[in-house]
Amino acid sequence: MSRPTPLSGFPELLPSQRAAELAIIDSLRETFELHGFASLETRFVEPLDQLLRKGETSNEVYVLRRLQADPDAASDSGMGLHFDLTVPLARYVLEHQGDLHFPFRRYQIQRCWRGERPQEGRYREFTQADIDIIGRDTLGFDADVEVTEVMAEALSRLPVPALTLHVNNRKLIEGFYRGLGVDDPTPVIRAVDKLDKIGVDGVTTLLAEAGLDQTQTRQTLALAQIRSTDTSFADEVRALGVEHPLLEEGLRDLVRAVEAGSRSNSAQFTLLADLSIARGLDYYTGTVFEGRMETHGALSICAGGRYDALAADGRSTYPGVGISLGVTRLVAPLVARGLLDADRSVPSVVLVSLADEDSRPAAREVARALRSRGISTEVAPEPAKLGKQIRHADRRGIPYVWFPSADGHQVKDIRSGDQVDADPATWAPPPADLRPRIVDPSQTATHAPSGQSEESSR
Amino acid sequence: MSRPTPLSGFPELLPSQRAAELAIIDSLRETFELHGFASLETRFVEPLDQLLRKGETSNEVYVLRRLQADPDAASDSGMGLHFDLTVPLARYVLEHQGDLHFPFRRYQIQRCWRGERPQEGRYREFTQADIDIIGRDTLGFDADVEVTEVMAEALSRLPVPALTLHVNNRKLIEGFYRGLGVDDPTPVIRAVDKLDKIGVDGVTTLLAEAGLDQTQTRQTLALAQIRSTDTSFADEVRALGVEHPLLEEGLRDLVRAVEAGSRSNSAQFTLLADLSIARGLDYYTGTVFEGRMETHGALSICAGGRYDALAADGRSTYPGVGISLGVTRLVAPLVARGLLDADRSVPSVVLVSLADEDSRPAAREVARALRSRGISTEVAPEPAKLGKQIRHADRRGIPYVWFPSADGHQVKDIRSGDQVDADPATWAPPPADLRPRIVDPSQTATHAPSGQSEESSR
Repeated sequence: MSRPTPLSGFPELLPSQRAAELAIIDSLRETFELHGFASLETRFVEPLDQLLRKGETSNEVYVLRRLQADPDAASDSGMGLHFDLTVPLARYVLEHQGDLHFPFRRYQIQRCWRGERPQEGRYREFTQADIDIIGRDTLGFDADVEVTEVMAEALSRLPVPALTLHVNNRKLIEGFYRGLGVDDPTPVIRAVDKLDKIGVDGVTTLLAEAGLDQTQTRQTLALAQIRSTDTSFADEVRALGVEHPLLEEGLRDLVRAVEAGSRSNSAQFTLLADLSIARGLDYYTGTVFEGRMETHGALSICAGGRYDALAADGRSTYPGVGISLGVTRLVAPLVARGLLDADRSVPSVVLVSLADEDSRPAAREVARALRSRGISTEVAPEPAKLGKQIRHADRRGIPYVWFPSADGHQVKDIRSGDQVDADPATWAPPPADLRPRIVDPSQTATHAPSGQSEESSR
Repeated sequence: MSRPTPLSGFPELLPSQRAAELAIIDSLRETFELHGFASLETRFVEPLDQLLRKGETSNEVYVLRRLQADPDAASDSGMGLHFDLTVPLARYVLEHQGDLHFPFRRYQIQRCWRGERPQEGRYREFTQADIDIIGRDTLGFDADVEVTEVMAEALSRLPVPALTLHVNNRKLIEGFYRGLGVDDPTPVIRAVDKLDKIGVDGVTTLLAEAGLDQTQTRQTLALAQIRSTDTSFADEVRALGVEHPLLEEGLRDLVRAVEAGSRSNSAQFTLLADLSIARGLDYYTGTVFEGRMETHGALSICAGGRYDALAADGRSTYPGVGISLGVTRLVAPLVARGLLDADRSVPSVVLVSLADEDSRPAAREVARALRSRGISTEVAPEPAKLGKQIRHADRRGIPYVWFPSADGHQVKDIRSGDQVDADPATWAPPPADLRPRIVDPSQTATHAPSGQSEESSR
């Protein structure tokens, strides 16, 4: 069999890279669960009629066909792979409404698929991490505040380059445009949403086409320039002198969201009130979110907001608010550029060395004693030369090699070369060595067998 | 939109059921990682030529087609969803061989798909949890011993009804048949493998067709009756008086595997040497495994063994040994029969009650203080009547309701009704309350708001 080649758009990680991704997913999960969000997995497959409700995404869906079915069009199963976690959530809520308690707060971390042309930041297979709060018929604005707080906290804890969660409020901008005397805010929102791509001149042209006069255009552009990491944006907006009840409501709401989210601001994370964020024609009605990283350029890694009707049937509507984080979109470019990795390819903290075949039972006993206290341990596969066994540990990034002996055990830190007496019943590594550490490989010296490691753990 | 209906063969869990499944997956993962197995995820999609190497499964593959592609046969993407985690592992090892260190020890917990007709225990979408050790060119028998030990330990820790991991060795049975004078053991293995389905009489007929005489048949059936939870099977085999070098090798190997795995034997778990296990015509060459649960009848929930060539290219072959656990096959029937659930639908330990809208900031402060010490906490969504807030907690299985007050906080255990003074900076629940507990709902009394809970946690 010849050597297989990668599939474009289907990124795959090496073990140490996967350890870094897993640390990121575990960190997200821990924050979500601390806030009481329930884990949910929906099936990965949805009926096509569910997937095609948003017509614009129809060309991205992968349809399933049983290989042995008749090869005509009717042989399609009528099912496709989900392309996000929002459509399955809406279906799940309607299907299981009688068994759910509202407000329903869930997180969901699953693979999704889109049949689009692969390019950096666009994958055909990718992992999303979503949080949402869904109400039945009503859902207070505190849900928006909470989602902002939780995702800000989750993002601020990630061991990755600095990222920013931009937040705005559709009521605020719509109220502002109405206060300016604009009757139909939709083309204005659509124009402002392109500010990043076409610049001030381009947007000015679009606003003129939408019928805005010079004052309205100037004010619209002035609003879109406002951004702050605290609630000072509100004074800047009011200084523009525009008044409208919807604007006031949006300002009050955005102030509350920014208060909650900016608690997590740090060198690594910024919650930014950004009044240029509109999220295009998405179905958001209040709070809107967009997450970005400098390392990723204009690529959005987070998106979300408030929607008044996630789902509805004859009896109820289900409003919701949520944010979706693109885990693969975050991780894969960092890995590809050598900016994200872990210091080990295995969970093992200790490799127990093997002097000869007869000493294997004793080596297994040492391993069991260490594992019983939560220390991940493996035994050398064979009684090779000592140097080879140390290389076995070093290649995998295992920090300690254990030397069992009836006369007294010893353990060696192969990074420093230090070797000390140790008892398998009591020895423990520093807590930081218990799990693989995420390192930024671009800042790491080459790992030498007994050299001092200078890996930066964040 | 009308209410969606379930898709047959695509089981989906309610939040508390998912909490139980997640506890099972976390427990598996913890054991695998303690033994130094690295987490791996492969892409969910493989080229069809990879998936069709085992011809017999070809009719079960779901092929992907982009919805907007031309609706002729050539529009298939040439890719299908993987139907197990072994085929992707073989492809991954060949593709990334230069970046992997051998022996390569990995665990993999992912969804798989088969387009077969759904029935109990057979799903179209299901989660597998695999461990494998892969060598390059050689792999010692210690890998078999280790895989037996790790999976036995993992299974023995699962909070589910009693299960048994049957283990046998193909060399042992093949050597035995050869020692009996059988030239071609294949039809004998094939016949014995049907013992469960067609009984002694049926197998006797098949053995006669394969050319075995009465003595050979009697001996073959005698071997298949032998089973023991310790290494005593070896004496029973030797008492049959058959001799062959391959038999001796298989006996020695099986003794070692059983020694390692039977350490985990308990009321809940049995590692059983079972000399009737042959695993049909699978490509196993040494150790073979099959896991069963009494609650699941004849359904196998675990399968695996030693294969001499997981993969091969022009330069190397990759022998391996592994076991695959069907997580969905384990969980879904238990859930469907009401035998598996968690005592909560959310991770929350505490619901902070809300006296009025003005007290929300203080309630959020309490929640933050508790979370900072690892206690999952949510704040009541609105300042409803106290009874309604307690019902909010009770419906979700949240054990504690917190009453913030400037005069001094109190916390109530809504299971016992006990209410005590508490400080958000120091209060902690008993450790057993920190995470959802798996309960066997068939043994649980109806959960009453302030009644004593009698849920059995295992």
